[in-house]
Amino acid sequence: MTLRIAEIFGPTVQGEGALIGEPTVFIRAGGCDYRCSWCDSLHAVESQYRHDWAAMSDEAVWDEVLRLSDGQPLTVSLSGGNPAIQDFGPVIARGRAAGYRFACETQGSVARPWFAELDTLVLSPKPPSSGEVVNWPNFDECLKAGAAARQMVMKIVIFDQADYDWAKQVHGRYPDLPLYLQPGNPEVDPATPIDPQSLIDRLAWLTDTAMADRWFAPRILPQLHVLLWGNKRGV
Amino acid sequence: MTLRIAEIFGPTVQGEGALIGEPTVFIRAGGCDYRCSWCDSLHAVESQYRHDWAAMSDEAVWDEVLRLSDGQPLTVSLSGGNPAIQDFGPVIARGRAAGYRFACETQGSVARPWFAELDTLVLSPKPPSSGEVVNWPNFDECLKAGAAARQMVMKIVIFDQADYDWAKQVHGRYPDLPLYLQPGNPEVDPATPIDPQSLIDRLAWLTDTAMADRWFAPRILPQLHVLLWGNKRGV
Repeated sequence: MTLRIAEIFGPTVQGEGALIGEPTVFIRAGGCDYRCSWCDSLHAVESQYRHDWAAMSDEAVWDEVLRLSDGQPLTVSLSGGNPAIQDFGPVIARGRAAGYRFACETQGSVARPWFAELDTLVLSPKPPSSGEVVNWPNFDECLKAGAAARQMVMKIVIFDQADYDWAKQVHGRYPDLPLYLQPGNPEVDPATPIDPQSLIDRLAWLTDTAMADRWFAPRILPQLHVLLWGNKRGV
Repeated sequence: MTLRIAEIFGPTVQGEGALIGEPTVFIRAGGCDYRCSWCDSLHAVESQYRHDWAAMSDEAVWDEVLRLSDGQPLTVSLSGGNPAIQDFGPVIARGRAAGYRFACETQGSVARPWFAELDTLVLSPKPPSSGEVVNWPNFDECLKAGAAARQMVMKIVIFDQADYDWAKQVHGRYPDLPLYLQPGNPEVDPATPIDPQSLIDRLAWLTDTAMADRWFAPRILPQLHVLLWGNKRGV
């Protein structure tokens, strides 16, 4: 079976969310059923880039992870695009047999049986600023499919007050799902240098907003990889 | 019973380690059995500041946490100084009865029965650059005392290659204890503005060193609060 792969890179540290700081090899799947207004991975989303996506067997994908990690088990993160529109079950089976751990980040629009084989399933429903609308029955299917994963968490990107208010509503709907908030990054052009202070200011705003609101449920984290390496690919 | 307290502040987000991003009220205990060369909390360590430490009953400490958090349960972090040289058991008992969670950060030089009542015990043995020498039998006593905590982790601050090599040895001694590495911050004067780029560069160095070395065991995280607020106190 052939997988469309935008890039495989690492090891580097996970820059965001529940596994922040964790040494990771990333498999970035090509293709997405969403087109968020502020997407930072258009090279894995827009169909104009599809000729840059490699067609790889699950064996070839796994061999590349092994090569990058020198065969030393670590966490492998499936990202995209939306990795859930493809079948990563065979890659996960190969990796788990070799002692690797797997995480997957998806918006929660497509459920997959292989969610149950993950160590960490990150569901990232997209807030109003994305321009997308969440299909909640589909999201609930993802929750069911991931119920056997070792951990399942929710992550919401926050660009503005409307996103923040929406995140509170979503948390009300899923109060038992650990929640991570992340300030949005409006600068997504790989050629534009990042201003660390503006990222820090966005994190400070989100932190101050939640603390003043006495909303203590979510953990609030920046994208460390953007601070470290800007919007460069492959790091 | 009276506790010596340097400051109680928050809620703000935890800036480092296993609970990074977690909304937290901090209780900073006054007094320490160490004097690390690069200590960033001398106002809670040096005896010259002891007259600034409040003498508070456990009830008064708890009332201040309740006031700061508006009585809404969150994580309370015991830090210092070394909080383990005092008896925080009564504060923890009050807080747990009200649904609060407790974390404690200590170097692991003094074991306490109340470690068992914690949600998170962070043991931070100090590397060579600190100028301190770890007493490993005492550290092992702390591990025993904390065995019933909900989670127990180790955090090591890394200033240079010698610290890095030492951390690998320590991990070899405690391979099952989840490990967090954190680049050191040499600028600890509250009056000196922080250069975010220099902190980012230190994080990049530590990340690159561990990845090139294929050491995938530790999670590697910066001090977010220093990026956000420099060395200011009370945030």
